[in-house]
Amino acid sequence: MLEPSSVGIIAAKTAHFSQPLRLKSGEILPQFDLVYETYGTLNANKSNAVLICHALSGSHHVAGKYSTDDKYSGWWDNLVGPNKPLDTNKFFVIGVNNLGGCHGSSGPTSINPETVKAFGSKFPVLTVEDWVNSQTLLADYLGITQLAAIVGGSLGGMQALQWTIAYPERVRHALVIASAPNLTAQNIAFNEVARQAIITDPEFHDGDYYEYGVVPRRGLRIARMLGHITYLSDDAMGAKFGRKLKDSIKYTFDVEFEMESYLRYQGDKFAGEFDANTYLRMTRALDYFDPALRYDADLSKALANVKAKFLVVSFTSDWRFSPARSREIVKALLDNELSVSYAEVTAAHGHDAFLMPDAHYHNILRNYLSSIEVGAIK
Amino acid sequence: MLEPSSVGIIAAKTAHFSQPLRLKSGEILPQFDLVYETYGTLNANKSNAVLICHALSGSHHVAGKYSTDDKYSGWWDNLVGPNKPLDTNKFFVIGVNNLGGCHGSSGPTSINPETVKAFGSKFPVLTVEDWVNSQTLLADYLGITQLAAIVGGSLGGMQALQWTIAYPERVRHALVIASAPNLTAQNIAFNEVARQAIITDPEFHDGDYYEYGVVPRRGLRIARMLGHITYLSDDAMGAKFGRKLKDSIKYTFDVEFEMESYLRYQGDKFAGEFDANTYLRMTRALDYFDPALRYDADLSKALANVKAKFLVVSFTSDWRFSPARSREIVKALLDNELSVSYAEVTAAHGHDAFLMPDAHYHNILRNYLSSIEVGAIK
Repeated sequence: MLEPSSVGIIAAKTAHFSQPLRLKSGEILPQFDLVYETYGTLNANKSNAVLICHALSGSHHVAGKYSTDDKYSGWWDNLVGPNKPLDTNKFFVIGVNNLGGCHGSSGPTSINPETVKAFGSKFPVLTVEDWVNSQTLLADYLGITQLAAIVGGSLGGMQALQWTIAYPERVRHALVIASAPNLTAQNIAFNEVARQAIITDPEFHDGDYYEYGVVPRRGLRIARMLGHITYLSDDAMGAKFGRKLKDSIKYTFDVEFEMESYLRYQGDKFAGEFDANTYLRMTRALDYFDPALRYDADLSKALANVKAKFLVVSFTSDWRFSPARSREIVKALLDNELSVSYAEVTAAHGHDAFLMPDAHYHNILRNYLSSIEVGAIK
Repeated sequence: MLEPSSVGIIAAKTAHFSQPLRLKSGEILPQFDLVYETYGTLNANKSNAVLICHALSGSHHVAGKYSTDDKYSGWWDNLVGPNKPLDTNKFFVIGVNNLGGCHGSSGPTSINPETVKAFGSKFPVLTVEDWVNSQTLLADYLGITQLAAIVGGSLGGMQALQWTIAYPERVRHALVIASAPNLTAQNIAFNEVARQAIITDPEFHDGDYYEYGVVPRRGLRIARMLGHITYLSDDAMGAKFGRKLKDSIKYTFDVEFEMESYLRYQGDKFAGEFDANTYLRMTRALDYFDPALRYDADLSKALANVKAKFLVVSFTSDWRFSPARSREIVKALLDNELSVSYAEVTAAHGHDAFLMPDAHYHNILRNYLSSIEVGAIK
């Protein structure tokens, strides 16, 4: 069943790029694919395009369904559609799977034409900068010189920010949601524990597990369980699970508390769907992102060439990317006398709040997006 | 080298208990050993005894050294000694390794006389109540009817609290530091991830890894790395490590940031020393502790029979057992018109602050402990 505000039945498309892409690491991808989806219609002067950048476990499948009996919609379907906050009657919206991903774009599971085996460990480590560079090539491919807006939450917000730094002429608005200008030591620490769980899984085989017909499922499961703790707030967990028992206490290490049941379910589900090599690369891209690094940690200097207008949104209970981190971005933008709207949304859901259809939050996005003019490229 | 305020060279002692101990789970330990240390001298009327209860990875070795060339002192040596805040010129201090531990008290690594093999998975799951019951037997063994004080941080604080609930006549003062009346859903979640890392390690062998000549080192290492994140505050990690790189960025999953190096070191060290079955049991005891459970979650009712006087201490940056959790204990004590002093110490070190020799914190302990009269049992 499709609700009236759904973008409807969608098919993913693949763009092949045969020109080499030089990565920040110095490695070169001789050629690559980007899988993407679009919703809405590109207008005549191509001024209404909005790119959605995904976070750690996201994909190009932002909205709609693949068939009428598809159980799940895209991951940001509550935001994107006709008359939704990101209105596809007005905007031409693009979702793209990042390089290194496991949903169709070139990544560790792709076949290396030289060896006719999966790239595995040979697939390079990527950065936010690399992703943005590859996304500009997708924009070129679609004939879009300048994006009306880039929207991203979490790691997606870092990509939106990077677009405005590296391609100031190519983006008019950046919506940076539940994000940060870099990771804290604690953020890096959580990523490192997740990576070590994967890498030390005996079935990881130095990243070439495909050749052994196994996956480092145990490690990926632990990584995801840990991730979920950081996506939710202590309060949200308390409200949802508290100390509720599944049954009477059995004095074992099996599930005793509902909290445990939830985490195991989330871990198992993810470990059956996602690629461990992609997970490693996504967390490393998060770790490395730090536009201020070249400017003596001065974010204001790093944003000196930015021209875009910004909406920055944070959530009160987000302890992974706290409001204080968003305010660092706002301050640096204001230091450069850029146009910035900032909303600190009272929300209980922690980092996950950016994916929730909270009315206040969605109204903020709706109002900002409705103010964007798409008549002509400025 | 021993400093003048050290308790000096110490030898651990073992108390054997041949009477059966019925556990909360319903299981019975037919006999058991408790390994303990003492510092200072028990006075004639046996009124100056202080029991120290340890936390997750602690032991009976609270203070002093085992030889003059011992590199390390006991884990709370900065607190316990002549003229230290817990002054061994005044008090007779007892450190004990909890049942289920891996430092000498009966636990999963102990030999089961029936099978002449390590207990392993057969060693029962324990609770804070069980530990306290076994500690009363140690007090009996030492001829101590009433303790002047029980001191514990974190899980140790839960034991101090439980003593005052279960044995109100046997304890005059409880020092409950960086503790909580139960775990939050988030606390349980972190424990569950740690346990799952251990249990899903292929070398865990359902807890009977001793028979295979292996240990679930990978899982225990992940558990400890994760633990360290929760012991430190985001700010403390930021101050100590920040985003400092070990070297130039290499675009690999090897150590890039100093934060990673620290976590790996801590994880490796712990995995080489500690027993995984003990770790599982310690975390489960934390999960289960909830004295208010039988009283419709009303902690005040749970503390109705308590007679001890309390010092409750929390640390501003402790997000594992936040000050709010300590204030719950304080409120419930006040509801029962008990004597309670409460200190919320401004400290950067997170949960670990309770182990640090912070001058303000130590003065609070010193002042409270110096006020305790040990002239005669009241």
